[in-house]
Amino acid sequence: MSPGCVLSSGPSSLSFRSHTCGELRPEHVGEVVTVCGWVQYLRHDLFIILRDFSGLTQILIPQEESAGDLKAALCDLTAESVVKVTGTVRRRPAGQENKRMPTGEIEVHAESVEVFSVCRKLPFEIKDFVKKSESLRMQYRYLDLRSSQMQNNLRLRSQMVMKMREYLCNVHGFVDVETPTLFKRTPGGAKEFLVPSREPGRFYSLPQSPQQFKQLLMVAGIDRYFQVARCYRDEGSKPDRQPEFTQVDIEMSFVDQTGIMSLVEGLLQYSWPAEKGPIKVPFQTMTYEEAMRDYGVDKPDTRFSMKLIDLREVFLSTEIQFLRTALNQPGGSVQAICVPSGAVRKETFPRSLLGSVRLQCAELLGSHGFPFRDLSAFQFLWVVDFPLFLPKEDELEQLESAHHPFTAPVPEDTPLLYTDPHKVRGQHYDLVLNGCEIGGGSIRIHKASEQLYVLENILKEDPSLLSHLLEALDSGAPPHGGIALGLDRLISIMVGAASIRDVIAFPKSFRGHDLMSQAPDLVSDEELKSYHISVRWPTEQRGDEGK
Amino acid sequence: MSPGCVLSSGPSSLSFRSHTCGELRPEHVGEVVTVCGWVQYLRHDLFIILRDFSGLTQILIPQEESAGDLKAALCDLTAESVVKVTGTVRRRPAGQENKRMPTGEIEVHAESVEVFSVCRKLPFEIKDFVKKSESLRMQYRYLDLRSSQMQNNLRLRSQMVMKMREYLCNVHGFVDVETPTLFKRTPGGAKEFLVPSREPGRFYSLPQSPQQFKQLLMVAGIDRYFQVARCYRDEGSKPDRQPEFTQVDIEMSFVDQTGIMSLVEGLLQYSWPAEKGPIKVPFQTMTYEEAMRDYGVDKPDTRFSMKLIDLREVFLSTEIQFLRTALNQPGGSVQAICVPSGAVRKETFPRSLLGSVRLQCAELLGSHGFPFRDLSAFQFLWVVDFPLFLPKEDELEQLESAHHPFTAPVPEDTPLLYTDPHKVRGQHYDLVLNGCEIGGGSIRIHKASEQLYVLENILKEDPSLLSHLLEALDSGAPPHGGIALGLDRLISIMVGAASIRDVIAFPKSFRGHDLMSQAPDLVSDEELKSYHISVRWPTEQRGDEGK
Repeated sequence: MSPGCVLSSGPSSLSFRSHTCGELRPEHVGEVVTVCGWVQYLRHDLFIILRDFSGLTQILIPQEESAGDLKAALCDLTAESVVKVTGTVRRRPAGQENKRMPTGEIEVHAESVEVFSVCRKLPFEIKDFVKKSESLRMQYRYLDLRSSQMQNNLRLRSQMVMKMREYLCNVHGFVDVETPTLFKRTPGGAKEFLVPSREPGRFYSLPQSPQQFKQLLMVAGIDRYFQVARCYRDEGSKPDRQPEFTQVDIEMSFVDQTGIMSLVEGLLQYSWPAEKGPIKVPFQTMTYEEAMRDYGVDKPDTRFSMKLIDLREVFLSTEIQFLRTALNQPGGSVQAICVPSGAVRKETFPRSLLGSVRLQCAELLGSHGFPFRDLSAFQFLWVVDFPLFLPKEDELEQLESAHHPFTAPVPEDTPLLYTDPHKVRGQHYDLVLNGCEIGGGSIRIHKASEQLYVLENILKEDPSLLSHLLEALDSGAPPHGGIALGLDRLISIMVGAASIRDVIAFPKSFRGHDLMSQAPDLVSDEELKSYHISVRWPTEQRGDEGK
Repeated sequence: MSPGCVLSSGPSSLSFRSHTCGELRPEHVGEVVTVCGWVQYLRHDLFIILRDFSGLTQILIPQEESAGDLKAALCDLTAESVVKVTGTVRRRPAGQENKRMPTGEIEVHAESVEVFSVCRKLPFEIKDFVKKSESLRMQYRYLDLRSSQMQNNLRLRSQMVMKMREYLCNVHGFVDVETPTLFKRTPGGAKEFLVPSREPGRFYSLPQSPQQFKQLLMVAGIDRYFQVARCYRDEGSKPDRQPEFTQVDIEMSFVDQTGIMSLVEGLLQYSWPAEKGPIKVPFQTMTYEEAMRDYGVDKPDTRFSMKLIDLREVFLSTEIQFLRTALNQPGGSVQAICVPSGAVRKETFPRSLLGSVRLQCAELLGSHGFPFRDLSAFQFLWVVDFPLFLPKEDELEQLESAHHPFTAPVPEDTPLLYTDPHKVRGQHYDLVLNGCEIGGGSIRIHKASEQLYVLENILKEDPSLLSHLLEALDSGAPPHGGIALGLDRLISIMVGAASIRDVIAFPKSFRGHDLMSQAPDLVSDEELKSYHISVRWPTEQRGDEGK
């Protein structure tokens, strides 16, 4: 194994290869090249198709008797074996070019080979058109990732994040600060994983976001913070959620809502991959009220119209009994959506149901070949002016934060905090892409007294659990705000993936399992001792309850 | 609070301010500017010194009767209150310039002020020369981070990491891939934190490094991977260690040891901050044997000589009894270090003790004013050719991995694996900076049969725990290798910090506590139920034992 390092830049620098498989073109004809990769397949003992991350190249197996050893070595190779081949680039004989293959005009006449490893029989073939069950893909993720689709997804993700960093650090002077993931449990943080410490009864918790830290960094005068942050959420089994996920976490001082929104528009425009076409800024903005009225949902898919239409006026004097009943109920209305195939559907559900009906209609029409929703379009939308508080589901008298307790009220609504808190709108903004929420943020409360009032008098929470944050706000806090973008979701929409699992290298299954390594796993009682915990086995528990 | 956004780039883009405090110069004289920041101090009701991350600027308080309200508002400000001031930049009157202050030639004549927040009395002043106890600094970390030193440390860290990313992604085609932190327990992973899952008895574990994932990514054909990776190590209380830390994690396919070493040299040269002076590549290389022989340690501080000298030949026929005894013991030797002040010390300890003596001498001489060790120098050193296996401390017959079981042997030593494994050198390399290990890596075993032999026959470990990795190596694995750089340690040496805590925004204390939020914290029995665990209180345990 000779070094043969190429001291330069690019994907073949410092490597055994001189070129990647995918880059060879007629201009390389006559050159002696070295390529490394996986055997995609052998054809008639004449050709090997060799693959690396960049593409495929055809290797010609020499047929002369003098090259018998080389021929034997190449013809013995199983699919997915890994080799290094040195040879001369030749133009393919006339008529044998492959126009669908970027390297289809050339082939490499093999002169020597080094076999790095011989592949066993695999559970499935590495061909993009081979359908596999998802659990098989996850169990053999290292094979699944060899597909051109997964290679593209991970590479596009890496490139987009790199551009985001350039925009934030180099263009706008943000500081990339890492914040801890072993933290204190958030009050009511039922979805936080626990981490036992070596002190009896004491636990760290894996936070759902760096929210407190980013605000503390603003109090600390960091001015502009960002982090591509690992976050944790223990929701048990939920479709297309992951116990750990990534958010592009941003916070700025001396800024207002307009400033953050412009920053994010610039960020997406700057980092958007050229091959996906340009995106237009500023994005459309809609109030929460408009979104609910026209689309029945706070994250409308604006790639198609089919708005909800209020028919109350039309049916005020209707004779149709069920419509009369609906209209006479408090908050009752008759609404419709106009489906572009011509039929009009009238509905009397509460609006959010109609919102789902609207999306289902779109799906249905799409699947029947009515292409009125442009699936390749990227429709960004800001939703603003959310209510700051909502009635608790199980206790309607009591208010809870619509997003989180740190969101500042819209300035002109601030007096209402002390009189009619349910009427207060928050300086919160959600970013929606094609009907999916991909980000959310707010201007934060930066006055300790206001934060204390919200916690104590409106939310009826124990403020001592956030005493460090309240003390910080009382120590010279700048006005500040920020946003968090869900990176997994954003990339999955961008590449048109069916699930966020297709843009994560090693995702967990629906049930939170790593199917490759079998995590989570059993741990010996001995190992638990140093953390002062023991397992409550359900059978034991049932036994105890029976006593 | 009017937006007044400046749509441009730079640190004042999208912000309430037009300029940062630190950037004002005589060229701005006559301009109306808006600055935002913290009140550093008030002087004689005449001046306010305003601070932001970029520096200080002097605000002149108007003394005219017509500006009485403005004067009152400014004079009422407590230190560390946060304000926005608009005013005109003027040249300071002749003789009043402050040459030690970058903005010392100008001042801003205040015309309006907005007070964002008034600061309470703080537990300590934000002045760099104010000495505070470390626990106080940690409890009020958001104040401590306002010091110019901590601001510089965090900003330099952010910039250096950004440059590293540019080098890896943009220059050499690396892919930034995020790997999971909720993983399976490593065999014998006694230092791994556990995370209980919602399945009884089953735990995730927070890995000490993405080692397995990065190798799997190479098998997956990712070709070049890097990640600025959060890692976890539960070592209880150890000085200057953190339970979570960051490593720059790198892995490459089709590369040898020389290639990785060149890559890292280029990486550090590219990302090294200009103000620290250039660094020379290639770095010095030393074998493990040479390091132990000449310095008595595997991470020599090569900023000074004072090598260990073997005096066996000199003393072979000595009459001095204790030296004779030493020389007659197996492995016994007489060694010396030559201290530059002239005295020669003879020592008969095992070499590693003499290595510590060497460092202590250097400390002592340094503190007595012998400046023979250049404290501003950055001396990088590669240490190579480590033994692949070492005898276990408590069971000398049994070998364990000197680093980890995935390190490949030096090619010419491979046959010895099967005959004399204790003689095998590994393709491992440590990177040492000023006597501290800041990185380590290796070329990995990429043949399943070799990996299985090492696990089963040499290390006597159960290979089924790594069956996914063994299967992966059998599925077409490229030759590959990599390195991990300890980012916290590297930055702390670069900025001359006493502890890695000075380059981490929110570090844990020596005992693993977050002194600001009081983590780890008690968790209710109710909350533990969903994870099927309960606390074993030490008193209970003692009680049980007494039964």
